[in-house]
Parts: sequence; C-alpha cells; structure tokens
Amino acid sequence: MTHFVLLSGGLDSTTLLRWLRGHYSEEPIEAVTILYGQKHAVELEAAGRVARHYGVTHQTLGLPPISGSALTDAGRDVPRGRDLDELAGVAPTYVPARNLFFIAAVASLADARGPGVIWLGVHRDDYSGYPDCRPGFIAAADQAVRMGTQHQIRVRAPFVDWSKADILRWGLEHQVAYELTHSCYQGTQPACGECDTCQARLRAFAEAGAADPLSYAATVE
Amino acid sequence: MTHFVLLSGGLDSTTLLRWLRGHYSEEPIEAVTILYGQKHAVELEAAGRVARHYGVTHQTLGLPPISGSALTDAGRDVPRGRDLDELAGVAPTYVPARNLFFIAAVASLADARGPGVIWLGVHRDDYSGYPDCRPGFIAAADQAVRMGTQHQIRVRAPFVDWSKADILRWGLEHQVAYELTHSCYQGTQPACGECDTCQARLRAFAEAGAADPLSYAATVE
Repeated sequence: MTHFVLLSGGLDSTTLLRWLRGHYSEEPIEAVTILYGQKHAVELEAAGRVARHYGVTHQTLGLPPISGSALTDAGRDVPRGRDLDELAGVAPTYVPARNLFFIAAVASLADARGPGVIWLGVHRDDYSGYPDCRPGFIAAADQAVRMGTQHQIRVRAPFVDWSKADILRWGLEHQVAYELTHSCYQGTQPACGECDTCQARLRAFAEAGAADPLSYAATVE
Repeated sequence: MTHFVLLSGGLDSTTLLRWLRGHYSEEPIEAVTILYGQKHAVELEAAGRVARHYGVTHQTLGLPPISGSALTDAGRDVPRGRDLDELAGVAPTYVPARNLFFIAAVASLADARGPGVIWLGVHRDDYSGYPDCRPGFIAAADQAVRMGTQHQIRVRAPFVDWSKADILRWGLEHQVAYELTHSCYQGTQPACGECDTCQARLRAFAEAGAADPLSYAATVE
C-alpha cells in the first residue's frame, strides 16, 4: 500500500506528512505537489524542503491552469486584511473543483501502480469558505475514487474535524519543521502577514501559545 | 445551465452530443476533448469534425500523460483480434482513473463559470472491463462533483444502462453523422478492424442491421 500525500508545503499538509511518518512508518510515502497556475508557486520550494526533511519521494504534477480564483487569475488580487471572523460564503481564494482535480490526478498515478491511499490536510476552519474541504466532500470523493479505480484507491483526511490550532498543537508536540514551510497566498518572502492564510496561521500560533518561526512583512491588528 | 460533453469523437460520445442537441436545444452545449497521452490522438480530429457538424463550441484540454494502459504506454501494444465474448477482468486498455480525471478537469472549467452538467457517453458494454464506466461510479462521481464545487455541478451518463447497439440504433434513427467519427484504438486510418473497440463498433452495426460508413483494414471472423 502506497501513501500519497498532497503536499503544498504549508502548515497543514506538512503536519500531515509528519503524521503519516508516525502512523505508516513501514509503508512507502510519496509527496505530490500540484502546479495549477497558482501565483504562490513559491510553495513548491517549501514542499521540496519539507519532503527532503522527512525523507520521502517528492514529485510535482502540472495541471492545466485553473481559472476563476484570486489565487490564479492575474486580474484578481489576493484579499488582504480581511477580518477572519466576518467572512461569509465561498472564499475569493476558492479554486474551482481544485481538490477533486488534485485527487483525481493522484488517483491516476496511484492506480497505475497498485493499491494506495490519497491523503489531504483539509480541516474544519476551511469548511465555510471551501466546499471541497468539507467532510461530506471527502467521503464522496473517497467513494468516487474507490469505485473508479482498478485498485480501489482510497481518500483520507484525518484532520477534517480538527481546527488549524489543533493541527498546530499536534505538530508542535511532534517537532514538525515549521521553519521549512510556506503558507502565504501572496507568495512573498517574508510572508505578507495580511492574506487570509497568513492571518489564520498567525492566529493558530497565538492560540497554541507558540511563536511562528517565519518572518512576516506586516501583521493585522 | 451549461452542458459540457466529454467528446472523444467516437460512436458513443458523438451520439450523446446529438442526444443533447435534441434534449437541451435551448441551452449552451460545449464539447471538451481531453489529451492524456493517448496513442490514438487522431480522435481529436474526429471530435473537431463532429463538434463543427453539430455547431457546438469545442475545446481541447491537455492533462499530464496517464501511464499504466495499453492506450498510453509505448511499451504495451493495443490488443488485436481478441474474442470479445471471452474477455474477463479489467481491460488492458483501461486507463487508470481516466474518467474521474476527465470529470474533475471539466468540473474545474465548469465551476469557474456557473451552474453546469458534465455528460459522459459510457454504456453497459463497458462495465466489465472498465470500473469507471459503471453506474455506481457515475453516481459517486456525481456526488463528489456536486459536493466539491461552488455551483453544485452535476454528472450525467444517460446511456449508462444501454448497450452499444442501443446507442447506435438511437443514433441511426436520428441521423447521427457516423461518417465523421473515429473509434479505432490503434488510431490508424482506415481503422484496424481488430482492436476491441473496432470489433465492438462493427458488432453494434451488425446487430443494428446497418453498414458502418467507415473503412476497415481488416475484420475479425
């Protein structure tokens, strides 16, 4: 059984990789990073660092650019300085059907090889803004992949009911190498500190009572 | 509501396009042909002819090549001269997770635009050799796409319980332009007449009591 982890190089998927190393230490683990036209493709470098750190195979897979998102469309800015407590509806950073597209791409790789599981680091704080991060979607995708592959590939998201702070607390207890990660949607270094994901990351560190090892250009009060 | 049809340029998907033209004449229909490393990419030309004939928008979408199939791997020959009544198990021409990958790619396109339906021409004769052509898969993919998209995109396969001969009979009654289509897995012109899909097509024409307008290099007795 091969374990394929969708690794963006951010906090959630890096923690997931560490989690998999703990739970499936005897089985092959492979990290896959997807290029889909994201502006913050700098995350590819972080994913490479993280995969090397944890000693797993790493490959990148290029999909046709996905349009319709602030993360991919040149004419749409990534939102900055939004109040995370006031967000409603689908996020402007939602990428149309991204998670299903990623899952299907990895299912093709996996099913050509043999039995396997596809792992995602989606979590509870993503529910409201991202339809493809909800438990119902994960369960449905698992069924679709299982039924649509010769080796009955499965889909798992062990953090789906955790908050980002829960993930971080688990990761801090297990010495996850957060200094290697990258989260910022702007793709800047230092991280912008103002986009939704920088804010969510900083809030998780604050809730966990820990300091983020990354540098930030600004912070939102 | 936009209707996206996965058009290979073969008998099944061409009939489906005609069926959609009849059932949704007032709504936009768009054909999408996927390149996934198939040896018989000549089908792209047939798909273009068919789309023009039916006056629908046509686009091609390039995915990373899918390995693990006689249709895509350079080192594996497309089987010829097999007895269609003696086949068992997953077909050597099964392409790992192809239909889910195609559906997810079109779901991304569709969900960036608004409400839509993705249509596939899969049918009953494909069940045994292709797990991703079965009714259970289509139902599961429909749920996964519906739950993983902001516009609740749907997946439909109206021929899923039909035989290929049923599809052909319907198409002949509706003057489908079968002379524009291409089915052969070898990708040769004239068609080889000996691969599984040439044989299945010739058998369907025989069952329907009609003559196939295409030329064949050989036939299997």
